[in-house]
Amino acid sequence: MSAVALFGAGASLWPEYEKHLRQAIQAAAPDVQLVTEAAPETVDFIIYAPGSPLQDFSPYTKCKAVLNLWAGVERIVGNPTLTQPLCRMVDPGLTEGMVEYVTGHVLRHHLGMDRYILGAPGWNQIVPPLARERPVAVLGLGELGLACARALKGLNFAVEGWSRSEKAGLDIPAHHGEAGLEALLRRAEIVVTLLPRTAETENLLNATRLGWLPKGAALINPGRGPLIDDDALLAALDSGQVGHATLDVFRVEPLPEDHPFRHHPRVTVTPHIAADTRASSAARVIAENIRRGVAGEALLHQVDLRRGY
Amino acid sequence: MSAVALFGAGASLWPEYEKHLRQAIQAAAPDVQLVTEAAPETVDFIIYAPGSPLQDFSPYTKCKAVLNLWAGVERIVGNPTLTQPLCRMVDPGLTEGMVEYVTGHVLRHHLGMDRYILGAPGWNQIVPPLARERPVAVLGLGELGLACARALKGLNFAVEGWSRSEKAGLDIPAHHGEAGLEALLRRAEIVVTLLPRTAETENLLNATRLGWLPKGAALINPGRGPLIDDDALLAALDSGQVGHATLDVFRVEPLPEDHPFRHHPRVTVTPHIAADTRASSAARVIAENIRRGVAGEALLHQVDLRRGY
Repeated sequence: MSAVALFGAGASLWPEYEKHLRQAIQAAAPDVQLVTEAAPETVDFIIYAPGSPLQDFSPYTKCKAVLNLWAGVERIVGNPTLTQPLCRMVDPGLTEGMVEYVTGHVLRHHLGMDRYILGAPGWNQIVPPLARERPVAVLGLGELGLACARALKGLNFAVEGWSRSEKAGLDIPAHHGEAGLEALLRRAEIVVTLLPRTAETENLLNATRLGWLPKGAALINPGRGPLIDDDALLAALDSGQVGHATLDVFRVEPLPEDHPFRHHPRVTVTPHIAADTRASSAARVIAENIRRGVAGEALLHQVDLRRGY
Repeated sequence: MSAVALFGAGASLWPEYEKHLRQAIQAAAPDVQLVTEAAPETVDFIIYAPGSPLQDFSPYTKCKAVLNLWAGVERIVGNPTLTQPLCRMVDPGLTEGMVEYVTGHVLRHHLGMDRYILGAPGWNQIVPPLARERPVAVLGLGELGLACARALKGLNFAVEGWSRSEKAGLDIPAHHGEAGLEALLRRAEIVVTLLPRTAETENLLNATRLGWLPKGAALINPGRGPLIDDDALLAALDSGQVGHATLDVFRVEPLPEDHPFRHHPRVTVTPHIAADTRASSAARVIAENIRRGVAGEALLHQVDLRRGY
């Protein structure tokens, strides 16, 4: 008997994903039927994206898994009707894109590129230190943070990581907890924030913690907007405590044109492009999880609903 | 009997190098005396830099080696009085600095960073291809070119190299000769020039070869100014054939303020900072070659005077 996978990610994403999902499901689980509408009690898998009109999961009584198209699950994880297993997207293309964004912007700050891109006159030969002399902190050591930390280590940066709870056995020097955060931030000249958004990470970078940084440190946030206390960051930028912030994610997106980040000389705004799910590789991850669900195997990237990631 | 090493690189460099050279020579060849003046016939080694007042090498009859402080030797290699072995600098710090500059600017062009650094308004989510989909050409596969190509490969770029004569057994796809150059340039979206300056490489990137590039390709030249035909490049930039040029080296340095490169919207000028010899690591290379010369061992990084590098 064939299983049913409902594309519940919203009509606007269907044109981008249909072809890739059909191909990937055909290859991984050929008996599974991909549909955009179905009676809830007949559905075995839901392919989901935040912002979808599907909000009530309770009628999907036989559903084996809700498969999120994106890495972030904060807009679904608190949904009280969600009792089915939830899997987030770990798209190899998404990780690669994030690594490229992070290494690129870390090198940009390390090399002091902006002055030349903005057209510095004269011939002032400011030679930066070598990467091995540049302390970089990566906050968050999940899939994305760890991949970025490893790439920065490969470029010789003096990179260290931090996570809320201890992670043992990593190939990157790693800290945890409040004391570990202070020790790390006190020497980090470039900080990359790649934590999930949870109640505990909201406003992680507040006035106190921004104050721990060496004066003039650069901040790169491709993680989640609420990790940063915006008013505290603006004050730290105004005083020069933070030398530059490159921000890809915001509390409100698109970032309004009149938001102070838009025109601050020490802020670079990128429009949530650090990591974008690529339909082709994401479809293969979804199809693999459908195959596993049908076969009764453990699902990939299942979310712990209590921790929120 | 102790040997004599003459610091003939010019008085202006002595304050920067004295301490590092004394330490490194003391460690590697403690019997060698480091001096800034000596009767030519008593000198065993000359530490040299282009621009030094020392121009006539013929009185240095017993000199075992001329040790250049910099990677480039084009201003000494044609000196007809030079009959002694010449070694160029291969400073590990210099290579690391070059790799950082090249990977940083390749990522900058790959990610299209400039529009955000210059403050693009709106929320236009242009997601670049993945690095694996971005063809990058590295022209020149010497110490620096190969190190850069390997770092770009480590970041997943579709990197290929080119050298004038064939190099076998590399871990990077490599081309050579005129036909290989055309094949490579016809697909390269980002080109990095790291060739030595010789009669054969002068104006390597002329109007014809710039015309082989896909329209809008980016050019990064941290190698030597004369590798590029400046007028041909300006014409290619004006037409959009070359989308952007990031130039670190020029035919005349410092680059005059009224040079067209200074104000061209598609040119980024950096003031010859891509790779700077670090006195500490360079001194260790010099000292190791002095030790080898004293011991009668083969010298490191000896230049083929006929080929010019």
